Amino acid sequence: MNNFETEAAELDKADQLAPFKKLFKLPANTVYLDGNSLGPLLKSTQTTVSRVIEQQWGNELVSSWNSNGWIDLPSTTGAKIASLIGAERGQVICCDSISINLFKVLHSALQLNPDRHLILSQTGNFPTDLYAAQGLQQLLGENRCKLVTTSEDNIESALSTDVAVLLLTQVDFRTGKLHDIEKITRTAHAQGTVVVWDLAHSTGVLPLYLDDWKVDFAVGCGYKYLNGGPGAPAFIYAAKRHHSKFTQPLQGWMGHMAPFDFSEEYAAGKGMQQFLTGTPQIISMSALSDALDLFENVSIADVRNKSIQLTKFFDDCKTKTVQLDELQLISPINPAQRGSQLAYSHPFAFNICQNLIALGVIADFRSPDVLRLGFSPLFLSFADIEQSLSTLCSIIESKSYLDERFSAKQKVT
Amino acid sequence: MNNFETEAAELDKADQLAPFKKLFKLPANTVYLDGNSLGPLLKSTQTTVSRVIEQQWGNELVSSWNSNGWIDLPSTTGAKIASLIGAERGQVICCDSISINLFKVLHSALQLNPDRHLILSQTGNFPTDLYAAQGLQQLLGENRCKLVTTSEDNIESALSTDVAVLLLTQVDFRTGKLHDIEKITRTAHAQGTVVVWDLAHSTGVLPLYLDDWKVDFAVGCGYKYLNGGPGAPAFIYAAKRHHSKFTQPLQGWMGHMAPFDFSEEYAAGKGMQQFLTGTPQIISMSALSDALDLFENVSIADVRNKSIQLTKFFDDCKTKTVQLDELQLISPINPAQRGSQLAYSHPFAFNICQNLIALGVIADFRSPDVLRLGFSPLFLSFADIEQSLSTLCSIIESKSYLDERFSAKQKVT
Repeated sequence: MNNFETEAAELDKADQLAPFKKLFKLPANTVYLDGNSLGPLLKSTQTTVSRVIEQQWGNELVSSWNSNGWIDLPSTTGAKIASLIGAERGQVICCDSISINLFKVLHSALQLNPDRHLILSQTGNFPTDLYAAQGLQQLLGENRCKLVTTSEDNIESALSTDVAVLLLTQVDFRTGKLHDIEKITRTAHAQGTVVVWDLAHSTGVLPLYLDDWKVDFAVGCGYKYLNGGPGAPAFIYAAKRHHSKFTQPLQGWMGHMAPFDFSEEYAAGKGMQQFLTGTPQIISMSALSDALDLFENVSIADVRNKSIQLTKFFDDCKTKTVQLDELQLISPINPAQRGSQLAYSHPFAFNICQNLIALGVIADFRSPDVLRLGFSPLFLSFADIEQSLSTLCSIIESKSYLDERFSAKQKVT
Repeated sequence: MNNFETEAAELDKADQLAPFKKLFKLPANTVYLDGNSLGPLLKSTQTTVSRVIEQQWGNELVSSWNSNGWIDLPSTTGAKIASLIGAERGQVICCDSISINLFKVLHSALQLNPDRHLILSQTGNFPTDLYAAQGLQQLLGENRCKLVTTSEDNIESALSTDVAVLLLTQVDFRTGKLHDIEKITRTAHAQGTVVVWDLAHSTGVLPLYLDDWKVDFAVGCGYKYLNGGPGAPAFIYAAKRHHSKFTQPLQGWMGHMAPFDFSEEYAAGKGMQQFLTGTPQIISMSALSDALDLFENVSIADVRNKSIQLTKFFDDCKTKTVQLDELQLISPINPAQRGSQLAYSHPFAFNICQNLIALGVIADFRSPDVLRLGFSPLFLSFADIEQSLSTLCSIIESKSYLDERFSAKQKVT
């Protein structure tokens, strides 16, 4: 592996994002290839949450809703996300989970097409996206909302003037394959179809221009590439041109135009506020809000460039390593066609993943046979990549992954 | 006020709950009468959240979903709440906000009465309860779901075999007036009506026996008397006898019976898991989980006894203080008929509240003219109560509340 080590050292030397690694609090002797499942802790976030708890909650108590801007946190956190996804102000809000937000957004999108009832999505889309649509279908009845799915290759041809809403995830959670948001959105719009994009594996690592691409709605995740902490709140993007054209059925006091008037009739707030429901979980949202500040000093184009370099370096080295032939790449071979991850199939993918973790390389397994590796450009070095390859190689060569301690059934990954 | 000081000292001396005060991190020179809006910080919670962030997230990263029980946190936190509300195991889960949970529970409750469509609630109920019902009504149409409200005194007579669901909050958020859950539930059941109780101002301060009272569903709040932190997640109670009789429309992967199988068809988890939707906000939920441990060492009956003593001491002293006559009690005069709060109307209630806050007595204002005082028995002493009375008295006597700096329009309280 000596060549790879030398190459990694050269790539690290030229890496302009290398200084960001020290901002994270990463465990020793670990290569973390799972930042696409749970982003790691930033040192600043630890400090911020301590301050929120001790000073804001502990000392200032209920007055912090005003004095420390808690009441505006969904908007201010949303504004930080907006700058990462190409959204002008007033179109992003931070709240709840992706699953809850999908329900809100799918309902809103359906209302924009009152004479149609089909939601088109992709076979193999992340399940929660499909479950949200199935839940809405069950609630409204198939005459008003019906989910249909088609294969990835067939999406554009399945679009028609019957389809009310197209619901897609930009980056396939298993393979990392990328959809072209701009092109598909244009095709959908030509049929009068409203589009909803799930940006769970996109935000913070891919250049996004939702306004320019004329996207209608999007949802995304705070705890992957945004490093907002476990179960960090999610976000909603809604194009301003639609803001007065729908109602949002998960009505609660935080979405009311004047929550503290305590009026008995719901009157939706303007703009993105109408997507709020209950009281935001301030401690978790404060962690995300802090983590987002990292992106003030980073260009997403640079992040994307390094992401491509990282996945390319890994897969090129893997290809040159004959011992790794039994791992089959199921991600697109062209880095431009994939997100910031690589997926390899192997009959013993689960065991290999467990063996990697035991040796300090944190990877992910996805049923049924996928070893998934996430490449977060802000804290990974090329030396980390070389080390993970070297570890993987030793596992495959020695077949140590067949050891029974690596085959215990997973509970969660 | 000398008599009151002596009396307070005697009451404090006899107070068996007095030792709990030192477990809280309260700001100096402050009497906090707003624990019913946001409970204060426990020292243990500060330590726990630091550990969750540094050790669990920072060091153990994604493996914490298993190794630190994150995946079970909604259930384990729910189990701690169950013991406070008289629920046998498997009937309480912690998730989302009250507003979101009301939507889930109202839909479930309606399904138990498929031939009826009315949701009966109370005029002046906390607005988010009404908004949730209005949102469901808008979604399903008035033929399937229609909210009607009636005055507090008329509830039992408004019950009929037309009413599908009765939705009430046990403790009125303004006046503190208590409903008799057992009696009203029995009356509703006699008409075949399913009951949903909002326990926002009840849990942690009132003895509750939901199983014995045959309550169908309930929701409650983590950030008031449970001291779970700003916007702490809420909870749902659903009687086991109903668990297989409804579907829950906010479908997401965490409610699926096997989330990590990533199957495309939603299949609801058993029991309370079916109420889960998206990924829980772990940091906020960990704070609540920690705060709940306080109640392991407390009898709710003792908490209620002290709560009654506190409100009675305040109002008795107030009655004896002629200078305070212009404040009109709008809470029930009988402590057994009110929760752990007192509400007084006054044309300048907002200014008086601001003046109190400026002098270190944190109270709450509720539109239009209500000064609301919350009495959390686990951290308030009778000396605190005497001090708040003395401060209030000085404000009223001097009319200092008329100072213009106390009349700025509130943003949030």
